[in-house]
Amino acid sequence: MADTAVVDTEYRLSTEPKLKSFVADVLTNVGVARADAETVADVLVAADLRGVESHGVARLESYYVSRIRSGKLEAKPNVTVVRETPSSIVLDAGNGLGHPAGKRAMLAVIEKAKQNGSAFGAVSNSNHFGIAGYYAMLALEHDLIGIASTNSVRYGAPTYGKSIMLGTNPFAYAIPADKEPDFVFDFATTTVPRGKLEVYQRKEKQLNPGWAIDAEGNPTTSPAEALKGALLPLGGFGVDNGGHKGYGLGLLVDILCGVLSGGAFGNGLPVPNSGPEPGKISHFFGAFRIDGFRDVDAFKRDLDTELRAFKDSDKVPGQERIYVAGEIEYEKTLYHRQNGVPVHVKVWNGLEKLAGELGLPFELAR
Amino acid sequence: MADTAVVDTEYRLSTEPKLKSFVADVLTNVGVARADAETVADVLVAADLRGVESHGVARLESYYVSRIRSGKLEAKPNVTVVRETPSSIVLDAGNGLGHPAGKRAMLAVIEKAKQNGSAFGAVSNSNHFGIAGYYAMLALEHDLIGIASTNSVRYGAPTYGKSIMLGTNPFAYAIPADKEPDFVFDFATTTVPRGKLEVYQRKEKQLNPGWAIDAEGNPTTSPAEALKGALLPLGGFGVDNGGHKGYGLGLLVDILCGVLSGGAFGNGLPVPNSGPEPGKISHFFGAFRIDGFRDVDAFKRDLDTELRAFKDSDKVPGQERIYVAGEIEYEKTLYHRQNGVPVHVKVWNGLEKLAGELGLPFELAR
Repeated sequence: MADTAVVDTEYRLSTEPKLKSFVADVLTNVGVARADAETVADVLVAADLRGVESHGVARLESYYVSRIRSGKLEAKPNVTVVRETPSSIVLDAGNGLGHPAGKRAMLAVIEKAKQNGSAFGAVSNSNHFGIAGYYAMLALEHDLIGIASTNSVRYGAPTYGKSIMLGTNPFAYAIPADKEPDFVFDFATTTVPRGKLEVYQRKEKQLNPGWAIDAEGNPTTSPAEALKGALLPLGGFGVDNGGHKGYGLGLLVDILCGVLSGGAFGNGLPVPNSGPEPGKISHFFGAFRIDGFRDVDAFKRDLDTELRAFKDSDKVPGQERIYVAGEIEYEKTLYHRQNGVPVHVKVWNGLEKLAGELGLPFELAR
Repeated sequence: MADTAVVDTEYRLSTEPKLKSFVADVLTNVGVARADAETVADVLVAADLRGVESHGVARLESYYVSRIRSGKLEAKPNVTVVRETPSSIVLDAGNGLGHPAGKRAMLAVIEKAKQNGSAFGAVSNSNHFGIAGYYAMLALEHDLIGIASTNSVRYGAPTYGKSIMLGTNPFAYAIPADKEPDFVFDFATTTVPRGKLEVYQRKEKQLNPGWAIDAEGNPTTSPAEALKGALLPLGGFGVDNGGHKGYGLGLLVDILCGVLSGGAFGNGLPVPNSGPEPGKISHFFGAFRIDGFRDVDAFKRDLDTELRAFKDSDKVPGQERIYVAGEIEYEKTLYHRQNGVPVHVKVWNGLEKLAGELGLPFELAR
């Protein structure tokens, strides 16, 4: 876990409780109900713990607080149940924060799955909800298999297309193991996130082929051209390396989230340069009981065997480990709980500035 | 649709009814119950209609009949219900053909989903079941979203691994549209199928980077070296182009099929050179009601809007069409129903030989 680099001078160290309490205080201060603020804190800090900095407290001011302050996102939304059956629930998030509405929907799906064997849910008129894996993982302690997904601001093009049509549209599955870390598979359906193009531009590095196209629709390895163009789906340009599979996955997510929830989808989703458009994001959730198939303990033991077989299999030259989905994030969580949660100095300084503006104490240091 | 090339001299033309009746007669002749034989015929000919030749009648002798004749696959299996709840069913296929057991499980899942809102199922101790999309599509006429998947003989390596651990492990989703062709997304989780390496070897062409590794685990573009090595997951070698996502998808499928059904998984699955190992394949199915989320008609109209938006969006230079998942296969089905179903001459001659051996009439010509 040396790559976590918590001694890096670019990072300051905080703790899980301090970060959570700070995020909740900030959001309460700008008008969010305390329980909702605590949910957002839980989701954001879970991302930092798991090493997914891009979806952690780094987004607090830039994404959530700024939109609440500018009136583009409702601090106290009117969340309504649009449809409910014993096996499904659909919420309208009232253009509020995605995290509380998402968690409420997933918890309802979990309760329904416990009663009914399986259940699904969706949320429309919502906003960015953080890491999809958080919601899928809520199913784990109930011996359910959890599913979560969201559409997003558009960054990507379909196979053979040059229009920006698809979000990074992540899909997450969480499946409980016995002694091994649970299988938690949370992946974006574009090859890389847009942020990676920006990092490569700053570092003056060339992109890999298959990451992006330019504004004319031609494959490009130039970050500057790519940032004027579009991301490519997992599998890259055209069909030769399976780009149509990543495109299909991205479109599947947009259908399950946007179309199924009755929310925005396709051309109705915001694009990066259009500015924030409220309530255009939708989420999708599912859960089903493992004991509908077989005894839970036997399942978990076999899943351990499965995961270990992959981890113990022969490595390619130069590699010492084979990971299974969720394992790196699990190890990082343990490490960060013990050794402190790293926050990039730029984010740290931004949070300090925010605390000053809101008249809140800033005591994040470990 | 000019690429269907039905006038190609390498192909002979048959019809859907003639092919189905021939496949059913052959299987009945080698001991399969008539109803089961007709199910296999339906699945195989659906693949040929959809242009997925590799999973069509080409497999009749080489895969199914040869295994029945050599006693490695039960012609009249004892299929049992291992577990059943209002929202789930698990079958043991008794080492029979995958198609009848798979269809029985999916039809049960559909009935349960109609009653219960959503349902899942699995089949263990089975064999190759043809195209996953066939089973997912059974949900369409019931206004359900259908899911189907299967693990398979192993051909692929995990990210940073060189051992052959993963099948091509396809995942299929079917979602009903209104006037547009339904969204039918059926994709293997390796970048390419093993058959593609063999085709490239015959044509003396180099592989794309990201398709395969050699026996030592190094990336290779040599078909001969790749055939001694392993396929790579969707996204290719390592993690830079998302190979860990394809690996995660492949492992997810093996968990949902093999571990959840109580069947074979991971190291327990057969590898190509081990010869056929009976009953090691498992399948996974799911279905849920669209009206648990919103009115079905409104959903289907919005799905049409979504699909058209992608199809009508701007194309990259040199491309005239953007497809959505299932559209090419839908158009091919219509074309082949009208103009004949192409069967490669080698397959055609093999079927004629098989008919002779079994003393069956051979009247496939259109």
